[in-house]
Amino acid sequence: MIIIGEKINSSRKLIAQAIAAGDREYIQNEAKAQSDAGADYIDVNAAAFLEKEAECLGWIIETVQEVTDLPLCIDSPDPEVIKKVISLTKQPPMINSITLEPSRLDSILPLVRDYKATVIGLCQTGSKMGKTAAEKVEIAGRLIDKVTSSGIGIDALYIDPLVFPVGADVTSALATLDAIEIIMKQFQGVHTVCGLTNVSHGLPDRKLVNRTFLAEAIARGLDAAILDPADKQLHGIMRASLMLMGKDEYCMGYIKAFRKGLLA
Amino acid sequence: MIIIGEKINSSRKLIAQAIAAGDREYIQNEAKAQSDAGADYIDVNAAAFLEKEAECLGWIIETVQEVTDLPLCIDSPDPEVIKKVISLTKQPPMINSITLEPSRLDSILPLVRDYKATVIGLCQTGSKMGKTAAEKVEIAGRLIDKVTSSGIGIDALYIDPLVFPVGADVTSALATLDAIEIIMKQFQGVHTVCGLTNVSHGLPDRKLVNRTFLAEAIARGLDAAILDPADKQLHGIMRASLMLMGKDEYCMGYIKAFRKGLLA
Repeated sequence: MIIIGEKINSSRKLIAQAIAAGDREYIQNEAKAQSDAGADYIDVNAAAFLEKEAECLGWIIETVQEVTDLPLCIDSPDPEVIKKVISLTKQPPMINSITLEPSRLDSILPLVRDYKATVIGLCQTGSKMGKTAAEKVEIAGRLIDKVTSSGIGIDALYIDPLVFPVGADVTSALATLDAIEIIMKQFQGVHTVCGLTNVSHGLPDRKLVNRTFLAEAIARGLDAAILDPADKQLHGIMRASLMLMGKDEYCMGYIKAFRKGLLA
Repeated sequence: MIIIGEKINSSRKLIAQAIAAGDREYIQNEAKAQSDAGADYIDVNAAAFLEKEAECLGWIIETVQEVTDLPLCIDSPDPEVIKKVISLTKQPPMINSITLEPSRLDSILPLVRDYKATVIGLCQTGSKMGKTAAEKVEIAGRLIDKVTSSGIGIDALYIDPLVFPVGADVTSALATLDAIEIIMKQFQGVHTVCGLTNVSHGLPDRKLVNRTFLAEAIARGLDAAILDPADKQLHGIMRASLMLMGKDEYCMGYIKAFRKGLLA
């Protein structure tokens, strides 16, 4: 399971304040907490700072890399920003994200290749997001074609089938679960990744819904997720799910996480 | 989702004490708590009382039926005991359980037919339990043949693929999850059911493992479970899992359970 630690995101108020104040310690503590809890990548996002985004993101990258050797996940809506900051990374990063939109593909795929990066591909064309499982799988196939025909290995691609609020459409989570299973069976070597929070929009006890969705997605083959690994209830269900799927030799990942106090 | 409330089982010390003492109130409170939390059947088991089993089970059946109209799940290793007590039930019961063992089939299938009962079929021959997904599915197919050729509808059969401790064999839970998915796709109309506690034997934080297994099994199509619906964490993950699988119209089952305080 590839865990992308989601917390250093400027859409979160306390993170935005820390960036604005140049509070290195706050950012570094968030990075360390996620690293200690088993993150494989640290997501870094400064999109809320608009025209200062590249400057802020560069500062975050340098700040985080002072306290961890983990690779970063460079998270920006603007390909030009990604291009400006990617050379600051010390490890091959993940790029978050591409869609089928041609201008994004043309800007980002050369960076993926040149920096031996990995990349998240959203099941989305320029104008439209995949809603049904069939639409998601069809877009996934086209993303894979674009990536592999650019000379990038299929295993560098993390397909995010996207998930929409189940409170608005009761079939939306199932469409994503079905898409994960089909994509993982149909396109050997590719990864699937998903954010969890969107699914529970508008419902009570959102964290219960989010972590249950993670368990169900892992049961269908999901092998990466954007989440907070320091959330003990979420971490617990993730470790237990992987163990039950036979992906944890001798159950040692689960048992070690239990002993480290990471589970609840 | 068909919920079989598991608590009135003589393998539990406090239940055995209540049976031995003829403590109607204790047994009735266990029945009411499970009924209030959404059970569809109340499992009743007195197997620990050996030669007094039929007498004790008859007493439990009458005691429980004083406080609930729910159907019962008659749980006994001895077909003769089931035969003795089944006429006490006021609603068509579930029988727990058959295997492919011929003597059990010959005793129990006529009762299922005559009492319009439902029945749990374990993926087990006389001598051997199905370990791999393929073995479980093969036994399931033979159970379905036996049941339907006795003039019983396939929808009266709840197949339990069995699950073994993941701590002893890291592939054991996955075999069960795969079997659930295949059985539900291959044999339209049949149900699948599973107990949860065996999977976590020997591991720390067993309840976390059990409820995660439930979420994964629901993601693969499980439509019945033997559990304690008054366990709020378990109930929460069950309701969220069903909702995310598109099996909860307008999310009302989840929202109502939240409002009743059944989720945690």
